[in-house]
Amino acid sequence: MFNFNYYSPTKVIFGRGTEDQIGTLAQEYGATKVLIHYGGGSVVRSGLLDRVKAALDAAGVAHVELGGVVPNPHLAKVREGIALGQREGVDFLLAVGGGSVIDSVKAISYGLAEPDKDVWELFEGQREAERFLPIASILTIAAAGSETSNSCVITNERTGEKRAYDDDISRPKFAIMNPELSMTLPDYQTQAGCTDIMMHTMERYFTQGGNMEITDALAEGLLRTVIKYAQVLHHDPENYEARAEIMWAGSLAHNGLTGCGNDGGDFASHMLEHELGGMFDVTHGAGLAAVWPSWARYVYRDCLPRFVRYATNVMGVAPGATDEETALRGIEAMEDFYHRIGMPINLRELGIQPTEEQILALAESCARATGGSQGSAKVLYQEDMAAIFRLAL
Amino acid sequence: MFNFNYYSPTKVIFGRGTEDQIGTLAQEYGATKVLIHYGGGSVVRSGLLDRVKAALDAAGVAHVELGGVVPNPHLAKVREGIALGQREGVDFLLAVGGGSVIDSVKAISYGLAEPDKDVWELFEGQREAERFLPIASILTIAAAGSETSNSCVITNERTGEKRAYDDDISRPKFAIMNPELSMTLPDYQTQAGCTDIMMHTMERYFTQGGNMEITDALAEGLLRTVIKYAQVLHHDPENYEARAEIMWAGSLAHNGLTGCGNDGGDFASHMLEHELGGMFDVTHGAGLAAVWPSWARYVYRDCLPRFVRYATNVMGVAPGATDEETALRGIEAMEDFYHRIGMPINLRELGIQPTEEQILALAESCARATGGSQGSAKVLYQEDMAAIFRLAL
Repeated sequence: MFNFNYYSPTKVIFGRGTEDQIGTLAQEYGATKVLIHYGGGSVVRSGLLDRVKAALDAAGVAHVELGGVVPNPHLAKVREGIALGQREGVDFLLAVGGGSVIDSVKAISYGLAEPDKDVWELFEGQREAERFLPIASILTIAAAGSETSNSCVITNERTGEKRAYDDDISRPKFAIMNPELSMTLPDYQTQAGCTDIMMHTMERYFTQGGNMEITDALAEGLLRTVIKYAQVLHHDPENYEARAEIMWAGSLAHNGLTGCGNDGGDFASHMLEHELGGMFDVTHGAGLAAVWPSWARYVYRDCLPRFVRYATNVMGVAPGATDEETALRGIEAMEDFYHRIGMPINLRELGIQPTEEQILALAESCARATGGSQGSAKVLYQEDMAAIFRLAL
Repeated sequence: MFNFNYYSPTKVIFGRGTEDQIGTLAQEYGATKVLIHYGGGSVVRSGLLDRVKAALDAAGVAHVELGGVVPNPHLAKVREGIALGQREGVDFLLAVGGGSVIDSVKAISYGLAEPDKDVWELFEGQREAERFLPIASILTIAAAGSETSNSCVITNERTGEKRAYDDDISRPKFAIMNPELSMTLPDYQTQAGCTDIMMHTMERYFTQGGNMEITDALAEGLLRTVIKYAQVLHHDPENYEARAEIMWAGSLAHNGLTGCGNDGGDFASHMLEHELGGMFDVTHGAGLAAVWPSWARYVYRDCLPRFVRYATNVMGVAPGATDEETALRGIEAMEDFYHRIGMPINLRELGIQPTEEQILALAESCARATGGSQGSAKVLYQEDMAAIFRLAL
């Protein structure tokens, strides 16, 4: 067991109709001019945006808006938000959407809070943030956990680099989570979200050591819940209870809770997927599903006790004759689960076919982004990353 | 499933040697003069108090101290702390101890922040707090969960009333949790702490409805962990891993996490015990163990599905011929567990024998404190409270 810090200060307001509280909440947190940030047309078409604006109006809180955030959100949109926020004297930022919108809002907040510095420097690891404007979200997609996490992932659309910057300074003030708002999400996006949610906890679970028993118990309970309700949603997308279980799991999976006491986790699957996302613009969660089985088969012998525990406690498989067999059964059970919810288990099923040259470029970029190596279950170097991409073809 | 808010902003700094960070942390949170509050001599004898003062000195943070907090902390000590804090211009309060010391610090903070009002009014339900001075703790006893909770329980030693006041305004800024600091705690206190920890989550578990599957999964995982490691500590009190599991469980059991989505919980066992604590000054956790089996036998038929689930998922008993039988087996398994860790399962074993007159007075006071009734598993009125006390004799 390792020493750890746990810090998740975001106030969660969860349940039906909670988005109506946005005016009062913005006021309570001292907002005088809010930048409302969102993605595509669904937030407009559903009338949610209008309701948010009306609630802010009713509370006497001024606002401006900026839509057009895309999945794997772009640095250009972040810069547009910073310019708009400066022009308009924004002092609070509200994301209405999923992880991409929240991450874009976080990046805009970094930029607005330190206007003399280039925000991309944070993502290139050249400096740390010193200030941050308060942000919050009305969540419409359960996936990224960005509504309570300290993470932010932005894609530089010019260079194809998808880079993360984590900082507790960016923890949102509050998160409004109404599961109903996620009901119209297409099944593929829903299941990609469930995959992402599970991965945030799996990446804290598959480590060389330190995990506490209570952390494992929480992680395993969370994972079993997502496995159950992802399948419910695959057949019954408007099931409120299932949407709620998944949405709350999404926050808990990535707010730090499921990693307490471990060695920091093994985020290799995410780092590998980020390269695919930067080069091919795939759906993040689907990219994770396409990479994970190959990652798992590549590393499981080096982290056997955890793979055995996962197989029995999460996937519920019967133990095999050897630990290796049990571990492999667990990986196969995960592949079956991915297939049952319509997720790919390799790059072909994901719909991409990187050439050997592209694989080398992906691995080279991943190694650069991770400072040369990444991983705890097994430390991966550039040649390992390339090998996993090849295995995933 | 009910709508819920979840808010647990306290930063947790967990592990060996973390108390050395107190100077830096106090500085970071803007403290200029700290009131160090503590209980008996152990904090002094162990040298912890000296180390805390040295760390504050090294960080250039001034401090005054006030010891002598007793279990079931007294209003008189709170008033003494308020007077001292005003005289000394204290702007930050640090509890070094367990739940009693943290609750006493919370009450002092309420009093210092609104010096023109009587702090006991909060506990009598006459008003709500509007201000609060920042507080933090160095935890030495895993039990109350007060280090991250919004709860505060104070005893008016003149009237014998033990009363709670819950307010999110009182969530501590940070909690330093080094499991080593709890190693010298006598076994009876350790096990009373484990009982209290479990009860905070059990009281969120035994309700008429609303609980989410993920909340149940987290709650059951937490409870199984405490059951396991309480028994480890009974035989091996200096087991660091076990102390750590229990200490972290203590915070998670009462920060709100294990009640998300439920109907607010059923805190009848705590309310009944508070009366015993007020009249007989028993150890809080032991009082809970002495009351719970009688409460459970009194209410289980009205909340059968939850008692059946608890019996199988937490206590691991084999299902009986009927749900009633399964539920009773679960209650018996809890009694066996209490006995295995040296806890009482009735008032006789707790060492008190209230007369019928005292029972009527306890029930009358409990009904008054709860506004006439209390409970979700089964709503209890004054006569039910008296019946449970009688059953517990």
